[in-house]
This record gives sequence, structure tokens and C-alpha cells, in this order.
Amino acid sequence: MNKPENPAAFRPAITAEPIPGSRKVYASGCAHPDLRVPFREVALHPSANEPPVTLYDSSGPYSDPAQAIDIERGLARTREAWVKARGDVEEIEGRAVQPADNGDLSPDKLTPEFPNKPRVLRAKAGACVTQLEYARRGIITPEMEFVAIRENLRRSAGAPRDGEDFGASIPDFVTPEFVRSEIARGRAIIPANINHAELEPMIIGRNFLVKINANIGNSAVTSSMAEEVEKMVWSIRWGADTVMDLSTGRNIHNIREWIIRNAPVPIGTVPIYQALEKVGGIAEDLTWEIYRDTLIEQAEQGVDYFTVHAGVRLAYIHLTAKRVTGIVSRGGSIMAKWCLAHHKESFLYTHFADICEIMRAYDVSFSLGDGLRPGSIADANDAAQFAELETLGELTKIAWDHGVQVMIEGPGHVPMHKIKENMDKQLSVCGEAPFYTLGPLTTDIAPGYDHITSAIGAAMIGWFGTAMLCYVTPKEHLGLPDREDVRQGVIAYKIAAHAADLAKGHPAARAHDDALSRARFEFRWEDQFNLGLDPETARSFHDETLPKEAHKTAHFCSMCGPKFCSMKITQDVRDYAKAKEEAEAGMAEMSKRFREGGGEIDVAV
Amino acid sequence: MNKPENPAAFRPAITAEPIPGSRKVYASGCAHPDLRVPFREVALHPSANEPPVTLYDSSGPYSDPAQAIDIERGLARTREAWVKARGDVEEIEGRAVQPADNGDLSPDKLTPEFPNKPRVLRAKAGACVTQLEYARRGIITPEMEFVAIRENLRRSAGAPRDGEDFGASIPDFVTPEFVRSEIARGRAIIPANINHAELEPMIIGRNFLVKINANIGNSAVTSSMAEEVEKMVWSIRWGADTVMDLSTGRNIHNIREWIIRNAPVPIGTVPIYQALEKVGGIAEDLTWEIYRDTLIEQAEQGVDYFTVHAGVRLAYIHLTAKRVTGIVSRGGSIMAKWCLAHHKESFLYTHFADICEIMRAYDVSFSLGDGLRPGSIADANDAAQFAELETLGELTKIAWDHGVQVMIEGPGHVPMHKIKENMDKQLSVCGEAPFYTLGPLTTDIAPGYDHITSAIGAAMIGWFGTAMLCYVTPKEHLGLPDREDVRQGVIAYKIAAHAADLAKGHPAARAHDDALSRARFEFRWEDQFNLGLDPETARSFHDETLPKEAHKTAHFCSMCGPKFCSMKITQDVRDYAKAKEEAEAGMAEMSKRFREGGGEIDVAV
Repeated sequence: MNKPENPAAFRPAITAEPIPGSRKVYASGCAHPDLRVPFREVALHPSANEPPVTLYDSSGPYSDPAQAIDIERGLARTREAWVKARGDVEEIEGRAVQPADNGDLSPDKLTPEFPNKPRVLRAKAGACVTQLEYARRGIITPEMEFVAIRENLRRSAGAPRDGEDFGASIPDFVTPEFVRSEIARGRAIIPANINHAELEPMIIGRNFLVKINANIGNSAVTSSMAEEVEKMVWSIRWGADTVMDLSTGRNIHNIREWIIRNAPVPIGTVPIYQALEKVGGIAEDLTWEIYRDTLIEQAEQGVDYFTVHAGVRLAYIHLTAKRVTGIVSRGGSIMAKWCLAHHKESFLYTHFADICEIMRAYDVSFSLGDGLRPGSIADANDAAQFAELETLGELTKIAWDHGVQVMIEGPGHVPMHKIKENMDKQLSVCGEAPFYTLGPLTTDIAPGYDHITSAIGAAMIGWFGTAMLCYVTPKEHLGLPDREDVRQGVIAYKIAAHAADLAKGHPAARAHDDALSRARFEFRWEDQFNLGLDPETARSFHDETLPKEAHKTAHFCSMCGPKFCSMKITQDVRDYAKAKEEAEAGMAEMSKRFREGGGEIDVAV
Repeated sequence: MNKPENPAAFRPAITAEPIPGSRKVYASGCAHPDLRVPFREVALHPSANEPPVTLYDSSGPYSDPAQAIDIERGLARTREAWVKARGDVEEIEGRAVQPADNGDLSPDKLTPEFPNKPRVLRAKAGACVTQLEYARRGIITPEMEFVAIRENLRRSAGAPRDGEDFGASIPDFVTPEFVRSEIARGRAIIPANINHAELEPMIIGRNFLVKINANIGNSAVTSSMAEEVEKMVWSIRWGADTVMDLSTGRNIHNIREWIIRNAPVPIGTVPIYQALEKVGGIAEDLTWEIYRDTLIEQAEQGVDYFTVHAGVRLAYIHLTAKRVTGIVSRGGSIMAKWCLAHHKESFLYTHFADICEIMRAYDVSFSLGDGLRPGSIADANDAAQFAELETLGELTKIAWDHGVQVMIEGPGHVPMHKIKENMDKQLSVCGEAPFYTLGPLTTDIAPGYDHITSAIGAAMIGWFGTAMLCYVTPKEHLGLPDREDVRQGVIAYKIAAHAADLAKGHPAARAHDDALSRARFEFRWEDQFNLGLDPETARSFHDETLPKEAHKTAHFCSMCGPKFCSMKITQDVRDYAKAKEEAEAGMAEMSKRFREGGGEIDVAV
């Protein structure tokens, strides 16, 4: 048992219910008319006289009352037809599940297998079935059209641009061809394993909306599969765009199957964690063969991206010796330990091309791990970190040569003045492959509040160009997150991502703020709640002070009360400004007539 | 009743207890040996082999078990002797309390008067008793030496500098003379009314540690004085450097007296709020005479700074007409309403010199209010906002001419890419007078989480040069904050302020992060909790997952468990690096001997 459990943390029921105040709607495709691209639509109070607001929706079928949820059946496998239609995959028997895959548990302790396992798909011999490969060949896949529609949020045209994008190339409107070209260029990825047919595709790239990832992980023996599925469902409900399963305990294979079969978002893993389980937790006993077998095991299940710490090279390890916090990445320290024990170059590095060959056969994307990322403010931007980044740049090009999609992981713990250097170096060293950072935390003095220390850094690095932000919960450094921690972490990161989109001048971002600001100004309380990232919390905070139903339509708030209201005064200002304008227009008109009539005296305004 | 109450929100007991894991210590002065400058000292586990860490302490005598707290007596009036020793003040009878000061309440509803009211001090005729005046005359006051000692956190020397300060002039070490020169230059203020003798002086300026303010305010009829004092005590316990009393209800005068007599931090107010109460909430009924009388009333009580919205000029009001959220500052909209109703220039503007004359007689500092600040992302950095800022610059110079200390309030709601412009303009327009901003919020889409949307902006603008950050709680825009909201808001802002100090390269900042990082790396859990901004929360989060006492000394954490630990591996790395270094040194030595011995073959390293 690797992780102590927190039994009350997750209740096993699946949260399958609409998001308050939102209606689930779908858009269809043009080249692919059968696409059903999901959105959250928020209808406003009639007094607003505004159309409904369309919001990005990562929550999947769980928030759609028209969908029957049955985790034993899994989600609809819509993508299977798209994948098979390309004619380059074949059904295979697949690797047999082995006792070690679940930690050699006795049958009575084993999580049941998912009852409805699909056939495994793999590329036909020699074929490369990645979105990158198709993009290079000029093919616009259904996945590409799906994300193009998704990114536009049903806008009909580009909004006025206002922002500083630091050299990004965000278009006014996202076309499927733009998606294709960005993927072909390596500047964006659609993590979409051909075996993850339940996926609603999403895109990660600097010229698209900034995305966020939430981490989950099983809590050893007590975790039921329903509990683990619920963690994923709960994360995406609040806005996680991808979910990483960082489980390290038993039942790791079977639970992963339950998660993927029920996941509408890409699932990422760190395969070295499971490989380490298979060798009893002894890093030096890891071998390429065990790792390779684990990659295939997970690729066949449908994992969409793998964190691979192939940049932790033997030659860099001593660079961390004088750090305040050494090597804090789990994967990085596993590989460092292996390299030292054998005094050999990492097998992830020496077998990198072999890894690429496996991943291109399933379209698993790389998330090149930053195993030497700093674990404290003191260690930010040091020689070890940047040496590894250079290697990640080198590996990016190898992956691209094999047709494999790539993103790059980044820190970590970085004070504000050192954040931009991370982004600039990553862009130049890694050929603009998407950056995927953990925070960064901008100070180390607030254990219990690292969702905030890191949301500051995340917003900034997202603005500078990071494509996806890995969330941090309030429990970071202290313990395992419970439901409320997950919500706090996801919302903090949705804030960071959206603040970044706004500052970059993403043309789809401002409409949301403006709609909420108008609702606030006009005291449309229900609209204000429903447009918020967390309608439940906003409503409950309001109701603590003003619980009566009537107060939700009242034209005052608890801050100033009913007698004096600063917002009411604005109406006076508007009336005044209008009268002033009219008066001035009238005077100008009189003045014009004077001149036209030959009068010489102008009217002073 | 202006504010609906939330009866359970604050319990009336005063939180007078040590901060867990900290010891209260005091430093004495050099020129003024009787000074007792407070700090929090955190002793570390013996295994750390490190001296205790000294932290800034705003919590006052309440966290000192050696002090008996009795709110009916008030805090010790240490400053009275300093003030009187300057020989430029006199005791006066003072203005008699009038029924209108407390909202014309019947005696049975009236909050009792503070039983131990001190005599009122005022400058002798013609004297200017401000810290600015003394600084210009070359006098180093006890207040100046106090803050110099306070800012250095008992460091003996400057730490290595690492940061980007955007043109600030932060010294390696703060001397009393540096404090004096910054105040004389108008670049810093010590808000310290001569009638607030209970004050532990603090300084607000770009070349000092970034400070934070917390707002409190009475909740109309049910508020007891103990409740209101406790709100202040609770705010400073978590780190608020100043507290603004934004009360708008009844009993406003009597409760303010209780607060000030028990406040070790500067208290700020917005006098127009009370003036408005005196005219029954009808803005157009306000007069200069009522306002002037309110200023004197509050100055005699000991309010340390006044927010004065004198920049809301008649000519600017129409500039807000096309805004999405009009005028959202309460003071700004009061004055706008008055100006429009009378179609006259604001009496705050026309009587600005008269206001200065009052304030210099008590050393009340100006906080020049930004009544036209933006209330939404859409309105950021617009013509109305910057027109007012120009006027605030003009008024700053007038205040300085009268010897009055000044800081400038700033926004509000600003997307990240527009934040720096605010700072740059403020510095140039207002002659580097300290900037005091509310957030800014970097997006409007997260009601219920505006402590986070705004901590992002606060950290950035603090980095750019803002001297004090006004906190925002999770309840912003929704309701009245309770205890937990206040804590969340204060901690979020302590994070922002410290992240800013770090990024500016403040030489006193990094030591705290490094001490905590070392504690984290060495699994000194107790040290990690105690060094954190909120030891209670950090400890309770840890204990949710690993409740046993033994786990607090265990060399593992809940993230990876006891079997595998990334931090343990670092020891291996260090051993390896040391061996490598020794081996290389050995080879270099052999090589040297070879050459010295005439050998021609070098040893490859």
C-alpha cells in the first residue's frame, strides 16, 4: 500500500446531473455532419435582452440529462467509426492482463474487470495513425473539425482584438484547416488514442484556448472503481480539460480501464509509476522490457498521453546535488536512481526511438516530463533544469520524425521574475511544441494555499504562451485532495487559464466577462451565478447574507444595502451624459445655422 | 439599517493567543532604545541546525502571552510619549460627540462609549505635525526608526540580490535615515495619527516590503463592539498591515473608538460614508460643513488615513456614461451624484486645501480615492479612470505642499496585459507617491473566487511597484465576509505581497522561502507548518491524510508513501556527485603530477 487512504474523501456515486443554470447543447460539423460538439448554454433573464451565452464544456455526457449514464457500460464509442474509417488500423487480440498489472492481488481483493471491454485497435504494420501524420498529409480528420468548432464557442465572427500575445498567432476564427496546420507544424496536439473511442476531442496549443489538467489517483486498497470514475467526473464537471491518472497502488490496470471507458476527456499517465510497481518499488530493478510492456499495456487501454522523463540524462544528475530541494519529480527521481545504480544512460533516452514506434501505432502523445524541474524558489531556472530542457528539445524533433505528437512539461516553483525565461527558452528550444506547466508556484511560504501561489504563476505563464496548466490543489505538499480540494484546484486553474486568454487577446474570451459584468451591473443575480465558474458556490455565498428569494431580483446587494446604491447612480450619470450630449449637439446645430446664415458670432460650448 | 446582518459570522470573543509554533520577540532601537519592535520568531527542529527564522508580525499584543488583553482598557499608549516629546501638540477639549455621529440611535440601542477615552491631541496653532514635515526637517522620529528595524527582520546584512525591480530603489539594508529620506521624498508614508498612540508604526512605500490592507465594517444594529474589535484582531492575526473600517450603519462613532483604542495597526476610513449617514443617506444633501466636521471627528479619534475621492470632478463624470459597469466606487458615486445634483464641482476638490489643513494638524494621511476606477474588465484603463488619475497627481502635489502624507488608490478590475500601464502612469503622474490598489481582478467570471482572480493581479502590480494591496475576500460581489472569508482573503494577499517582494528581489524576502523549502525537503513537518502563512490549516490538511503524531517526523509524505520517496533519492545523488567530484579531483591531481613529472600523456576526464 503506497498511499494512506482518506476513506471519506470521495463518495462512490457518480455526479450525473446538469450544471445549474446551464443547458447542454451540441453543434454539428460541416465536413463531418455527425459531430456533436458539446457546449454549455446559459440563458439570461429576459430583461437582459441578450442572446444566451455559450461556454466551453468539458463535463461530457454526465451533465446532459438526455444521456443515461451507466459506468458498467461506459460512454458511447463515437470515435470508433472515425478511426476505422481511416482504414489504417486493425483489431488485434491485445496483450493479456497479467497479475502484476494489478499488483499481484488475490482475486478477492481485485477490482472487477470492466465488463464491456472493447477490441483493441492498433495501426496496421508500418502505418502511423497519429493526428500529426494526417495533418502532414493534408487530411482534416473529424477530430480536427470537432476541436475547431469547440474552440469558436459558436461565435459567428471574431470579436475586437485587445491583448498582448507575445508572438502567438491566434486567429480571429478557428477553421479546421487552421487546426490541421497547427498540428502539422507541431504547435498543437489532439491527444486521442485510437483506443479511446469515448473521447470528445480537445486541442492543446498556444494559439488555442488555454487548457487545464487535473490529477487523480487511486488510494490503494479501498478505492472502488466507482470512486475513481467519480474523481474523474468531478474534475471535468468543474472544467478540467484532461485528467492524469497518477495511481501508484494496486488494481492499477483494472481501475484505469474503468476510468478510460467512462472518460470523455484525454487521460494521461506516467507509465514509469506502474512499471515501478511491477518491480516491487525498486527503481534499480526497472528494465526497458518491463517499461516497454507497460507502454503497450496502457496504449491498448486507450491512454491518450504518456509522461516520459527521457530528459533525465546521467550527465545531468550531478547538477542537482547543490540544490535546496534536489529532484522532486517522482519520475525524475526514479530515473535518476536507476541511472546512478547502473551508472548508465537512462533507458528512456537510449530507447526513445523505440518508444516513438509504439506510440505512433496508437496515437499516444508524448508529454515529455521535466524530471529535473525545480522544487523550490531557490532552485528555479538552474543549470539542471535548463540542461534537461535542451534534451527535451532534441527529443521533440525525434518524436516529430516518427510522426508522434508532443507536448513539453514545465515547472514547478518559479518566482514571478523568472517565469518568462521559462517560456521563451521552451519556445525556442522545443520548436514551439505546446508547453504544459505545473503552476508554477510563485512562493513557497504558503502550504495549504498552493492552489493560489501557483494560480498566480499559471496565469502569467499561460499569458506568455503555455498551452495547458496542470492544476495544484490546496493539499499540495501536505496530503491527498478530497472533493472540495479538487474543486478549489480546478476553479483556481480555470481562472488562471481564462485570465491568460483575456490577456492574450483571445477573441473568444472577453464575451464571457462582459456578459457577467453586465449581469452584475444590472443586478441580474441569477445570471451572475449561472455565468460564474462555480454557480453553486456563488449562489450559496450570496444566500448566506441575503437568503430571501426576492433578493435575487432586488436591485441592491448586501454591500451597500437598499438605501444607497452606487450602481443606481450610474443611471443618473447616463441620463446626464445624454442630456449633455443633446445640449451640445443642439448648440452645435445652432452654431452651424448661424454660420450658414452668415452669422459671425459662434456659440461658446 | 444599511447592511443585512449575518449573526453567526463573528463570535464576540477576542482571539488573544500565540500563533502556533511562533514566539513573540521584540527588538529595541538604537537612537530610541525604548522601542519594542515586534517579530514572530519560529524556532526550527534541532536537526535543522539553523537559527530561528524571524518573520514580520502585524498581529500586535494579541499574540503575545505576556500581554494582558482588556479591550475596555485598550492597548498601551506607547506613542503618546513620542508625540508629546516633539513639543508641537496640545491637549484640547475636542469635539463633543453628537447623536448624529451614531445615527441618532436611542440610548438603549447605543453601543456604550469606550470607557477610557484619552485626551485629544492637536497640533499647536500653525504647526505641521506630520512625519513628512519631520522628515523634511531632517528629523528621524521614533516611528521612522521603528519601521526601519521592522523592515529588516533582524537580518544582520543584505542577502544576495536576485530580482527585477522595475526601477525601484530597494536598499540592501534599511536604515532610519533611508526611511526619513523616502518619506521626505513622498515615496513612502507612515500612517500614524498623533491620536492613535496604540499604534505599532509601519511604512508603505515601493522600496519597502509590500503591505496589505483588510476591510472590516459593522453589520448595523447587532454588532457589538467586541465583535468589531475581534474582526480587526482576526485580520491582523493573519497578516493585515492596516485595517479599513468601512462601517456604514449605526453606532459608527462609538464602535470606531473601540476599534482604534485596541488597534496596533493603522486604521483607515472613508469619511464620506459617515457624512452620508448624517444626511440620511441623501447624497445631494451633503455639504462641506458636514464633511469637514466628520473629518475633525475622526481625526480626533485617531484615524490614520482617510480615503478622499477628490479626483471625481464634474468634468469627468460623463466619461463613465458608456461604461459597462459605470461608477462602482461607493465614494465615487456619492460624489458623482452630488456633482450632478448641484451641477457644481465637487466640494472635496474645491476644499482640498482646507482638508489638508485639518489633516496636517493630526498627521492623518491621504489615501486619494479612485472613485472612477473600473468595475469590470471591459472598463479597465479608460478615459474616465486616467483623467481622475491626472487629478490625483495634481492633488498629491497640493497635499505635499501642506506637508501631508499621501498615497494613491488604484483599481480594481484590470486584465493582466493592462496592469503595468496602471503602475507606470501612477508613478509618473503622482510623483512616486505610494500606490495602493484593490486587486486588481484579472477576470470577472469567477464570483465566489475573487480573492484568487485578484491575487493574480495583486501579485503582478505589487511586483511592478504597488506599495499596498487591498484584499478581496471570496465573498466579494456576493455578500459580507465571515471569519473564514477574512482569513482566505488575507492569506491570498500575503501570498501576493510576498510573491511581489520575491520578484522585486527584496533582500529580506527569500530567506523565508528557503527556510520553508529546506524544512520541506528534510521532512521537518512541524517546521513546515510553523513557517507557513497559516500553520493551523497546513497542519490540519496534513493530518487529514496522515493523522498520527509519528508521521510528523516520518521521512515520507502522503504523496508517494513510505516505500518510494523522491526526496530520499536526492541523498544518493549528493553522495554520487561528491564521489564524482572527488574522483575528478583525484584524476586532475594525477594528471598534474604526470605533467610535473614530465609525463606527456594527460588523463581524459
